[in-house]
Amino acid sequence: MAASAQCRTPIRVGILGASGYTGAELVRLLVRHPAVTLTALTAEQHAGKSLAEVFPHLGALDLERGCRESGHSGVRALPGLVKVGEVDWGAIDVAFCGLPHGTTQEIIAGLPATVKVVDLSADFRLEDPETYAAWYGHAHRAAALQREAVYGLTERYRPAIRAARLVAIPGCYPTASLLPLLPLVERRLIDPDQIIIDAKSGVSGAGRGASQANLFCEVSEGMHAYGVGRHRHMPELEQELAKVAGRPVMVSFTPHLIPMNRGQFITTYVRLADGVGVEDLRRAWQEAYAGEPFVRALPAGVMPHTRHVRGSNLLLMAAVADRRPGTAILLSVLDNLVKGASGQAVQNMNLMLGLAETTGLEQAPLFP
Amino acid sequence: MAASAQCRTPIRVGILGASGYTGAELVRLLVRHPAVTLTALTAEQHAGKSLAEVFPHLGALDLERGCRESGHSGVRALPGLVKVGEVDWGAIDVAFCGLPHGTTQEIIAGLPATVKVVDLSADFRLEDPETYAAWYGHAHRAAALQREAVYGLTERYRPAIRAARLVAIPGCYPTASLLPLLPLVERRLIDPDQIIIDAKSGVSGAGRGASQANLFCEVSEGMHAYGVGRHRHMPELEQELAKVAGRPVMVSFTPHLIPMNRGQFITTYVRLADGVGVEDLRRAWQEAYAGEPFVRALPAGVMPHTRHVRGSNLLLMAAVADRRPGTAILLSVLDNLVKGASGQAVQNMNLMLGLAETTGLEQAPLFP
Amino acid sequence: MAASAQCRTPIRVGILGASGYTGAELVRLLVRHPAVTLTALTAEQHAGKSLAEVFPHLGALDLERGCRESGHSGVRALPGLVKVGEVDWGAIDVAFCGLPHGTTQEIIAGLPATVKVVDLSADFRLEDPETYAAWYGHAHRAAALQREAVYGLTERYRPAIRAARLVAIPGCYPTASLLPLLPLVERRLIDPDQIIIDAKSGVSGAGRGASQANLFCEVSEGMHAYGVGRHRHMPELEQELAKVAGRPVMVSFTPHLIPMNRGQFITTYVRLADGVGVEDLRRAWQEAYAGEPFVRALPAGVMPHTRHVRGSNLLLMAAVADRRPGTAILLSVLDNLVKGASGQAVQNMNLMLGLAETTGLEQAPLFP
Amino acid sequence: MAASAQCRTPIRVGILGASGYTGAELVRLLVRHPAVTLTALTAEQHAGKSLAEVFPHLGALDLERGCRESGHSGVRALPGLVKVGEVDWGAIDVAFCGLPHGTTQEIIAGLPATVKVVDLSADFRLEDPETYAAWYGHAHRAAALQREAVYGLTERYRPAIRAARLVAIPGCYPTASLLPLLPLVERRLIDPDQIIIDAKSGVSGAGRGASQANLFCEVSEGMHAYGVGRHRHMPELEQELAKVAGRPVMVSFTPHLIPMNRGQFITTYVRLADGVGVEDLRRAWQEAYAGEPFVRALPAGVMPHTRHVRGSNLLLMAAVADRRPGTAILLSVLDNLVKGASGQAVQNMNLMLGLAETTGLEQAPLFP
Repeated sequence: MAASAQCRTPIRVGILGASGYTGAELVRLLVRHPAVTLTALTAEQHAGKSLAEVFPHLGALDLERGCRESGHSGVRALPGLVKVGEVDWGAIDVAFCGLPHGTTQEIIAGLPATVKVVDLSADFRLEDPETYAAWYGHAHRAAALQREAVYGLTERYRPAIRAARLVAIPGCYPTASLLPLLPLVERRLIDPDQIIIDAKSGVSGAGRGASQANLFCEVSEGMHAYGVGRHRHMPELEQELAKVAGRPVMVSFTPHLIPMNRGQFITTYVRLADGVGVEDLRRAWQEAYAGEPFVRALPAGVMPHTRHVRGSNLLLMAAVADRRPGTAILLSVLDNLVKGASGQAVQNMNLMLGLAETTGLEQAPLFP
Repeated sequence: MAASAQCRTPIRVGILGASGYTGAELVRLLVRHPAVTLTALTAEQHAGKSLAEVFPHLGALDLERGCRESGHSGVRALPGLVKVGEVDWGAIDVAFCGLPHGTTQEIIAGLPATVKVVDLSADFRLEDPETYAAWYGHAHRAAALQREAVYGLTERYRPAIRAARLVAIPGCYPTASLLPLLPLVERRLIDPDQIIIDAKSGVSGAGRGASQANLFCEVSEGMHAYGVGRHRHMPELEQELAKVAGRPVMVSFTPHLIPMNRGQFITTYVRLADGVGVEDLRRAWQEAYAGEPFVRALPAGVMPHTRHVRGSNLLLMAAVADRRPGTAILLSVLDNLVKGASGQAVQNMNLMLGLAETTGLEQAPLFP
Repeated sequence: MAASAQCRTPIRVGILGASGYTGAELVRLLVRHPAVTLTALTAEQHAGKSLAEVFPHLGALDLERGCRESGHSGVRALPGLVKVGEVDWGAIDVAFCGLPHGTTQEIIAGLPATVKVVDLSADFRLEDPETYAAWYGHAHRAAALQREAVYGLTERYRPAIRAARLVAIPGCYPTASLLPLLPLVERRLIDPDQIIIDAKSGVSGAGRGASQANLFCEVSEGMHAYGVGRHRHMPELEQELAKVAGRPVMVSFTPHLIPMNRGQFITTYVRLADGVGVEDLRRAWQEAYAGEPFVRALPAGVMPHTRHVRGSNLLLMAAVADRRPGTAILLSVLDNLVKGASGQAVQNMNLMLGLAETTGLEQAPLFP
Repeated sequence: MAASAQCRTPIRVGILGASGYTGAELVRLLVRHPAVTLTALTAEQHAGKSLAEVFPHLGALDLERGCRESGHSGVRALPGLVKVGEVDWGAIDVAFCGLPHGTTQEIIAGLPATVKVVDLSADFRLEDPETYAAWYGHAHRAAALQREAVYGLTERYRPAIRAARLVAIPGCYPTASLLPLLPLVERRLIDPDQIIIDAKSGVSGAGRGASQANLFCEVSEGMHAYGVGRHRHMPELEQELAKVAGRPVMVSFTPHLIPMNRGQFITTYVRLADGVGVEDLRRAWQEAYAGEPFVRALPAGVMPHTRHVRGSNLLLMAAVADRRPGTAILLSVLDNLVKGASGQAVQNMNLMLGLAETTGLEQAPLFP
């Protein structure tokens, strides 16, 4: 990790909504981030508890001791859980916001302008107020912020993210789908009207709320599709595809729930432009993502597995020619809690703060 | 179960290749089949052992005792495992063949004509010798039998199956894909040139052979696609679709491996003919499958899960309108070891023998 | 199945609490039971729905059609879900009760004497009112019924069960632990004061209630112990062991939660009486369970797996000499939803009605 | 991480047997270790391939790029896989040896004395030549090394490990069992003749070799015991317990296979010395492990889960009073691939090299 990072005054970070899976994942990544100190953790239902009571795996860290041993100057003991209303905003430089949509826009609207915000909810992803209202059933309640927010697909919007005060982290499915698709639509290599996205996700994407549908016995040893024809990640996908296509785009998107904790696997069926071959797709990716630390286009013949990125901020993608002439299959994988949420959030925070983009995100994948 | 079945002389059944998962599943179904007695079980590698040594779950049945208790006249203790060459064919009325492809055609060619054969391998599914040679790399070695064999997709070929001596059980993916698709192509409701089949399967479809790729640690907690663009179930799908389309058809088919033991989930993306709506698809299914004991078209709004058919011979299907006009999504599920293999095999045997088609297949699904 | 069973007037069965896993499992077993018709299904929260809405896997059965096809005279379409207060008790011969403890005793106390009751709750397992009060925190509210109830460990109490109006189905852990232990304590082959039961269970034992602790992501890919030193199955274990020991017994019992749907594995550490060897334990089991249709003592060298009994009413047990002289290890497995709950309940119902004990319980285990 | 570490010349490390799970885990930990560079990786079967071909999750790291980005001076691209005979030993400072037992002793005996060795096999764990011969069926073939080797249970043998040239990493089960037990036996708080260890392990402990027994379908959705009464970790447990007891000890040890990738859960049943309570056990642990970075005794009422240590080098332990007077239950967990193997190996390497013991091992657990 960059020596420079260790020398500065630590960035003071608050996590709003620390009792969900994305909150825990932020803590996992940030406790070892050399430039950051966790100053506030909120959880309305669990205020007054320690984080260890809610997430015992984080309690075992014993940060003070770890700090002494390893010489990490930025690492401290974790603060206790409080309510959002109890946070001292003067002591926070960056707030990660992992609250439910709707609530999020009201809380962020109330934060002081000195606090940079990385939002993991869906509240600021859609730019068009009408699209927002159509999909969420009410007018946006923080319209100025909606205009200000930058869509945090790092590899596409780096300059804007660097300058942003409010970044909206893309949904896990859009991240996994758009990174392969955008360079291809942009270069007119595929037909934007013929995109079919068949998505498969691990269960952690459904969150930690008690629900019968996500009980072990309901989910293990089987699979199913959900939200068929009406998932809220659709307008987000179409917003970004439309920008590079230069006109409205409508995609087919079908998510499925897979009996695994982490990981998303996206199979995208595309129609190639005349004269385009699958090697042109790979070349476009090489151009688009040369030098990217976390995005990899695999060589011909190598297939991605979700296991190969578990716990890491990596996204892998491959392109295969379909037997039907003029069509191809794109395969992409990421860990929905890392590159699909908390990892991409930290990546953007690094950018917003002028740190090396990979800081705190160098972990190798955990397999098996 | 039909009282008549219990009164006849039991049908003498042999299972060739009883040490694989489809073999074990045949035993599970047939030991409780009232019209059948298992007379021979073969397993080249395990000859001389009891089936219980290879499959302890079947050893616990204690059939003799069960027989006395329940009054099943057709139930007997299981025979020991022998080599194929040791079978007394005069004592076999029906042979189920669960051997590897290639081997299968040689062994079946050598059987006496008095033995009816239900084959679970891929050897007799393709009707065209050239297609066979192209996908399997050699000319078929039992060409006359290839011509004679009936494709055992029960709901489509009942009359021919009733009269057949040799039935080729369809592959698991083709069964799960074709039952939804065939009535729609036949009625010209969808475009046969725009069919994209995204298939997901449990691991038992890969068989019981020791392989690093199918170890628990390689498969659990993750997923991936395999055989992309070149799976051998493709020509089988296309053969059957071509018959109802009246011309050659080429489909897109991509299988994925899911960390579950049993179950297949097929998501099929189709383009509707002009003026056709998703309710027309459902109506076609109702017509095609009225009275079918094992095939169910679900009402609008109900989605299939693989868990809902586990251990049963059922196939469930649903149709959903996609947001893109003129397109629809078909969802279908089955248990790959039952309706996708051994259950369909027993269903066909029942037909070939003039028994009630559901005999021995009435088990309710096992959930959770 | 017994021909005689098919000829009688069907037994009219009600299931109270049909929306839990044991309720669903009762339906799975009873819809194929030739002597029974399901007349009432209750679920307070879901009254007014069909069972298929709550358990889609049971909705796919299409019983009317199955009935016509197979000639089962006792099979009918399933009744809709109602509240307990709506049941017409005059039309019920046997009630299975799968309600929470506490509630159960009040509801059963209100049933007419003409209804035989098979109770799956903990309410009538403990015979001693003081023990009950100590473990459940209140005096029993149906003391006369508590005295009347018969403990439904079938293989031990067959005569009393045959004559009973109210049978209390043992807990899953006690069933799995007691069947190996009781003959050994009874014959003075092991020391009743030195019994350590290390129990491992699949997640379905925790029921279908929405709870964070049993979410897929909380349970998969890991394990833990729970209720250490204070699980309510302890007094039940000790009650039965004390009866055969002839004096009070205190055992060590520690349950663990394993990431699987079904199955219990019990490892019991015992101290042998002087001069006793592990072969004496096996011999005692052979004597005690000769002729039992569902209980099997495995031969030396064969180890039980929970997979070998999945979906069946079987219990397997093995004994192994420990290296420490004078000690042995007992291993036993069952499916907690079948022999550990609903299967044993049906077994007892068969006894109470004078039917063959195995009726409706002949399914072979489902593996993989 | 210690700043000093980054300044030195990197330690040159070779991994013998890099194609197994412990080998991959060593790479995962060492590629981010600031004081180390991986110089040689061996795999007899895969010589000539890149590590990415064998372990794609490690191929995605793109170390060269990561190196530039993050400023890690010690990070380099991974070397290709070679045979052991091809290694240039002059360029290796430390060798991790993850080879099969038997082979290991021959290869280590042939290494130059300048190479420090951290051995993960069972070859050098047993100190007594007769015990070795009794359990492995042949005399040790490197007797001098057997005498020289230090047993690498870090928290017990730190001074000897610091001075060692050859360290034998304890087995996963012994590590997880001994750390709770040793301080209690040493302080005479429990009876060393009454120790019963009921162990549960994830499947990765069985290695990556193709075997039918470890296929997904054989292992998922069920559990079983194995090696009952004869597991080779027994003499290792007894060797260490005997040292602190001051006399020979014989324990009961029964391992079980659990359907999860990583994690071991040990439930140990112990008899307390007169007048000893469970709080005395906790106090002994506090004394023994005060200041330990990776070993935690949990407070009363907090139970360990294997999920809480996944991917980390932590070991958690708890003690609970059993209802039977004078007895207690110890619960301990670790990740068998980290603290149970590769993590403890790196911890010992750090000691052997005079580095901070936690270097490269600070990762927080991965949950869910």
